[in-house]
Amino acid sequence: MPKISQIHDHAVPLIELWRGDLLESVHHGHAVVMHANGAIVESWGQADVLMYPRSSCKMVQALPLIESGAGHALGSEQLALACASHQGAGLHVHGVSRWLSDLGLGEDDLRCGPQAAEDIAERDRLILAHERPCQLHNNCSGKHAGFLTLNRHLGGSSEYVEADHPVQRAVRLAFEEVTGMPSPVYGIDGCSAPNFATSLQGLALAMARFAGASDSGDARARAMVALRDAMMRHPELVAGETRACTELMRAMGGTAAVKTGAEAVFVAILPQSGLGIALKIVDGGVRAAEAAITALLVRHGALDGNHPVVARYLGDMRNRRDLIVGQIRCARNFCTNAT
Amino acid sequence: MPKISQIHDHAVPLIELWRGDLLESVHHGHAVVMHANGAIVESWGQADVLMYPRSSCKMVQALPLIESGAGHALGSEQLALACASHQGAGLHVHGVSRWLSDLGLGEDDLRCGPQAAEDIAERDRLILAHERPCQLHNNCSGKHAGFLTLNRHLGGSSEYVEADHPVQRAVRLAFEEVTGMPSPVYGIDGCSAPNFATSLQGLALAMARFAGASDSGDARARAMVALRDAMMRHPELVAGETRACTELMRAMGGTAAVKTGAEAVFVAILPQSGLGIALKIVDGGVRAAEAAITALLVRHGALDGNHPVVARYLGDMRNRRDLIVGQIRCARNFCTNAT
Repeated sequence: MPKISQIHDHAVPLIELWRGDLLESVHHGHAVVMHANGAIVESWGQADVLMYPRSSCKMVQALPLIESGAGHALGSEQLALACASHQGAGLHVHGVSRWLSDLGLGEDDLRCGPQAAEDIAERDRLILAHERPCQLHNNCSGKHAGFLTLNRHLGGSSEYVEADHPVQRAVRLAFEEVTGMPSPVYGIDGCSAPNFATSLQGLALAMARFAGASDSGDARARAMVALRDAMMRHPELVAGETRACTELMRAMGGTAAVKTGAEAVFVAILPQSGLGIALKIVDGGVRAAEAAITALLVRHGALDGNHPVVARYLGDMRNRRDLIVGQIRCARNFCTNAT
Repeated sequence: MPKISQIHDHAVPLIELWRGDLLESVHHGHAVVMHANGAIVESWGQADVLMYPRSSCKMVQALPLIESGAGHALGSEQLALACASHQGAGLHVHGVSRWLSDLGLGEDDLRCGPQAAEDIAERDRLILAHERPCQLHNNCSGKHAGFLTLNRHLGGSSEYVEADHPVQRAVRLAFEEVTGMPSPVYGIDGCSAPNFATSLQGLALAMARFAGASDSGDARARAMVALRDAMMRHPELVAGETRACTELMRAMGGTAAVKTGAEAVFVAILPQSGLGIALKIVDGGVRAAEAAITALLVRHGALDGNHPVVARYLGDMRNRRDLIVGQIRCARNFCTNAT
């Protein structure tokens, strides 16, 4: 297997951090906006750069759950949790716990590993109760509940995160179909599931297909609509309070879905325009991925540039005494009409 | 004032993150190793790139405290706290609190702003006691106690963080002298103090001067020795448990001092070889700054490459189930003989 090391070669500056009159830090990356018809609308950096989508493709990983019929009894809350990188708040933990209970399964059937609760209220509750976070708090526990639901249907072994397990084979097949290319390599994700590499434009194409899907389409299209609509309907389940995915989806009033992935991936599904967006910051800087997706959402009319949420991710930066100390902004040739 | 925007122009890859057979993320940066005699020993990227040292120059900011005689009664613990970016553990909070009390001052005389305690035990203690973090928890509270001590001596106003205040004028003078150049611009730091820009090689030169200083030298040399030795003697005060500065200094057994700064700056003072090191990761990625300084410390014989602390910052990366999922390593042309 040849090693793939192209991630930075043709990256361009996307986000800058200024402090006073000096540029302090810069984030390079790649971004692609695609139409559901397969055309690249615009791009920065290298559109066909090979990368891992990480958690940004959870709605793709959930397609077999719906298409197989395994998830026929699931409500939109559960579909949103299947697509979530949640922060382990009470509503996430209880939602996944009930879902597992409905399957006759429990926390120890998960294979994602434990994770500290990022939600402040749940973190404090655990500390005050002298409890430890468990696998339900893992940001991927909803995805794994979806895997377990599919596994019940497929009758596979309990080790559903192994790359040759029927669950992951089904995920890979769907992933390669919607991205329009074979995956050249996979890595093991933080939650131990395989994460299949693709090109950034392949990921953007998948998002454009989610954007263009219609309820009058085939089984895949209907599955895409169900997952996309669940995300847009339950932004608080997809991430959590103060998180970018939740705040941006709320600000867009249920008209678009966005999803982050580790190492600074961000995607967007814009049903109103039929566009899909995918971006990757080369250094894994989350703040830059959040700023860049905000700029692209404004640029493509999905997010009002005057909405107060925009200033959380782009614009003035304040210090611990609330003094303005600098700005986070788009680099010269990236989205300059957006901010 | 012309804007300065050169930080990325000549940066080179320093640190790579691999997941499986695909390069997932890359960090670019600049690094300079200098001798106390002013010679560049080696460098990567642009040695004279203009940057903010941020908290990496706290030992420089503390020079006027010692040289003026204002700090004559301070012990090595207080000097270490003056140079610290601590994590608000009990020992840091109590140390600064006692120091202020000795001055007849209190927490409300600080101008650094409050910050959440990063230390887990203190964070949990605050939650269990239903208390809120205060300015003493700010990672810079020791530096500010030093400023207040100097201010008592200089008789300045209470607003000691203003750029034209006698305290900051004294800091700027010392900073420009030890970096060997006028500072072209300053920014306001997270703690509200001015942070003076310099070149990376100016910062490395300052560290080399700390490395080469001798107790038999002039007042500045003796102040450098006192501050450097305080850092090496009290690594737990300079940062805190699990933090890179503390762990690396402990691993070097009191033979070298290292200090991080926000936006991925790292410096090292190596008295045994008379070398000073300064590096800046262009994207502000802390993990890369920690990996790069680790590699440079090994390369220059300050840190044993087989010490277990090295594997915390360079080498295999594990996920939430403790599976090896990738590696963090030096880029091809950076320190390749070090890891």
